[in-house]
Amino acid sequence: SVDAATMTHANGDAKIAQSAKLVVKTPKGTRDHNPHQMSLRDPVFEKIKAIFKRFGAPCIDTPVFELKEILTGKYGEESKLIYDLEDQGGEKLSLRYDLTVPFARYLAMNKITNFKRYQISKVYRRDNPAMTRGRFREFYQCDFDIAGKYDTMIADSECVAIIASILKALGLPDFTIKINHRLILDGIFDVCGVPVDKFRTVCSSVDKLDKSPWEEVRKEITEQKGIAEEVADKIGKYVKLNGGKELIDELLENEELNRSTSGKQGLEEMKLLLQYCDFLNVSQNVVFDLSLARGLDYYTGVIYEAVLKATVVENGKNVGIGSVAGGGRYDNLVGMFDPKGKPVPCVGVSIGVERIFAYLEANAATKPRTTETQVLVCSAQKNLLEPKMKIVTELREADISAEILYKANPKILAQLQYGEENQIPLAIVIGNSEIENNVVKVKNIATREEEEIPRERLIEEIKERLKKI
Amino acid sequence: SVDAATMTHANGDAKIAQSAKLVVKTPKGTRDHNPHQMSLRDPVFEKIKAIFKRFGAPCIDTPVFELKEILTGKYGEESKLIYDLEDQGGEKLSLRYDLTVPFARYLAMNKITNFKRYQISKVYRRDNPAMTRGRFREFYQCDFDIAGKYDTMIADSECVAIIASILKALGLPDFTIKINHRLILDGIFDVCGVPVDKFRTVCSSVDKLDKSPWEEVRKEITEQKGIAEEVADKIGKYVKLNGGKELIDELLENEELNRSTSGKQGLEEMKLLLQYCDFLNVSQNVVFDLSLARGLDYYTGVIYEAVLKATVVENGKNVGIGSVAGGGRYDNLVGMFDPKGKPVPCVGVSIGVERIFAYLEANAATKPRTTETQVLVCSAQKNLLEPKMKIVTELREADISAEILYKANPKILAQLQYGEENQIPLAIVIGNSEIENNVVKVKNIATREEEEIPRERLIEEIKERLKKI
Repeated sequence: SVDAATMTHANGDAKIAQSAKLVVKTPKGTRDHNPHQMSLRDPVFEKIKAIFKRFGAPCIDTPVFELKEILTGKYGEESKLIYDLEDQGGEKLSLRYDLTVPFARYLAMNKITNFKRYQISKVYRRDNPAMTRGRFREFYQCDFDIAGKYDTMIADSECVAIIASILKALGLPDFTIKINHRLILDGIFDVCGVPVDKFRTVCSSVDKLDKSPWEEVRKEITEQKGIAEEVADKIGKYVKLNGGKELIDELLENEELNRSTSGKQGLEEMKLLLQYCDFLNVSQNVVFDLSLARGLDYYTGVIYEAVLKATVVENGKNVGIGSVAGGGRYDNLVGMFDPKGKPVPCVGVSIGVERIFAYLEANAATKPRTTETQVLVCSAQKNLLEPKMKIVTELREADISAEILYKANPKILAQLQYGEENQIPLAIVIGNSEIENNVVKVKNIATREEEEIPRERLIEEIKERLKKI
Repeated sequence: SVDAATMTHANGDAKIAQSAKLVVKTPKGTRDHNPHQMSLRDPVFEKIKAIFKRFGAPCIDTPVFELKEILTGKYGEESKLIYDLEDQGGEKLSLRYDLTVPFARYLAMNKITNFKRYQISKVYRRDNPAMTRGRFREFYQCDFDIAGKYDTMIADSECVAIIASILKALGLPDFTIKINHRLILDGIFDVCGVPVDKFRTVCSSVDKLDKSPWEEVRKEITEQKGIAEEVADKIGKYVKLNGGKELIDELLENEELNRSTSGKQGLEEMKLLLQYCDFLNVSQNVVFDLSLARGLDYYTGVIYEAVLKATVVENGKNVGIGSVAGGGRYDNLVGMFDPKGKPVPCVGVSIGVERIFAYLEANAATKPRTTETQVLVCSAQKNLLEPKMKIVTELREADISAEILYKANPKILAQLQYGEENQIPLAIVIGNSEIENNVVKVKNIATREEEEIPRERLIEEIKERLKKI
């Protein structure tokens, strides 16, 4: 495992610079990524991008900050975690909190009513960091959203399918996608006797069920949110249910829940979604889970969350990695930015890639290479910088990744050691006799085999050897 | 040219949302990037990354904000352009202004004395935006830096070579890399009679020579900075010089400039650098230009800047694109973060990729595709969503990018039109008779040719056809 080493290198310790007792560290909840981490991260982003493209999505980019007002009133109880910029005599700005609200702003601003896109960018939350589980204040989200009026559940099922495709592509096949529907939750709250104006705040409490037992959530609902105990107990009966089609059928026959129009509509839609999941070959990973609530205010329909079954070690204890993807339908968000309030129905998913990295880092078997250098150009004697610079240039012009040491007269052992440490496969070695005879030595750094080749056949010979490595 | 269209789509107009007179726009000096822009940008980043790797650099990432103190005192007169975050009861933070200071902080924090890396990230400056020339408040920098004690000018010449490689790889061979040396400028200021404590501020004025005529710079030096007129005139004589090796030799024989030790050292180093540029096959693009000063305070040695000869149209006038890459040596920056002030000499380069995009966007001949979808799965009759979903899943599982329309019963014309608009090469069309006969139709959307193939040979047949496209 490379975990311990890379973590130390990344977070460092706070160092105090002498001059003015300067604290040299990254801001709380953030970290650098060193080359080892980057060489784990880069292929993950590439794979996620490839899947987004496989589902036909183009890419957009938005600024890291938005006008503060754009974010206001979109995140419910989480709004307090938004980073604001200082007023330096211009507009009031905030760092983006997710990629969904900027996407909705983009749609409204450009009057787009039909659009599918992906975006991979960092977002910012002044949360309490839990770094080993991949919870930071600055973190990447990888989002895929579909905007437009389409037939019920088709775009929604596409989002569930893309989560499954991505987790499989990343070599994480052991996952469950929990699915629920805000209308079903509203139906439950309704028939249990929650006042309508408390639906969202009770929903926020239910959202904590993935981390807290029902007893704690019940306490929050009754003591903090003022819901009667018998109402809470009725809710408790529902939110512990989970299953498949048979559970939906059972609930559709449940007279109590059927009294709620929205509950019924939610169940009908859920039934259709599970059918589409079947067609899209993802139903083996999907479970209808009535405890899933999702914290954000803007969801209006189907919601989902993918959970890895794997765990990581934190403070000596095994803890679940938790949700690695989540999303849902938000039909009213774009309308909040439109002058006439015209809605554009949307559904989307966000891949929580930092938690996936935390898991992959903790489980990386070997240190991957951090560079792609193919050839190290070395000198066996002094005063050979000129021919080395010319050879390294010739190689690079032929699209071969090549390096020299930045010393005028490095020792041959130091050069070969650099090659070994950086896992560079080939070395070209020149000395005065090679120059006289118009040849170069090609050395396989790992096996130490070497061979003399004519100087003018350098590029072909190197390309030939690189093919075999 | 796609310029006008993409600009409108990207910047939009400020729209007022009804609810609370909400202004729906991006913050001043920033913009979204739509799919067309992203499909121009993405390959540019890929090419730059490939060249960085070809020179043996691994990648790191740092947070978008740093502790405010880390940035304090590093940028001279430009410090006023730093974005600060609001104090929300934690650390005082600022958005990064470049990638160089965070890199130096990274080295000091991790006690690294030997390191080469690249980083591609956004930086933030509260500057006056000039959007058509690619000057924004949020923009990407692509940085390559070499830290460590090496022999004179070797790492410096590597940075000059990487600029040339990148501009050539981007199809922009018509450029000049201006080179100068802070020690030469200091020597000039010294022998002309500028007081030592005014070297940096006069340097800031000289830096404006790429945008303003000497007369204006002279006025600033004499009137604002309090330098005597005859001193300014002597400076003027030097800073209009530019040339190659012969100019260095001439100046090395100039008795006046030779009285300055730093001037002489700068010239000797410049001579060596030009020799290395020759070995690295870049001297045809390099010019020694005494007017080059660079604005930032932290440079201590060689400085350089690449200028494209091309122009863009702004307000009906042809204006130069200006500098598209710049950098230099900064030997004292890392020491500012070290508790014992231990220096780590560094040299680096930053590619100003936004100006390159502005040029490429203005000159894009055709609209590139924004998606990579290879197959559109279509239905010729109603009630075929199930087989379409199954086919699209089968294709995606075979790594083929495929889409369906998100409608239960779309019209065949609407489906084919979507395929045409999105330049999707192939369509699979199924109807009831195809299902009965266990076949599918494969249609080339552009030529409208179609052919029936057995359902079970779907993947092979599609892969066969995609190879030919």
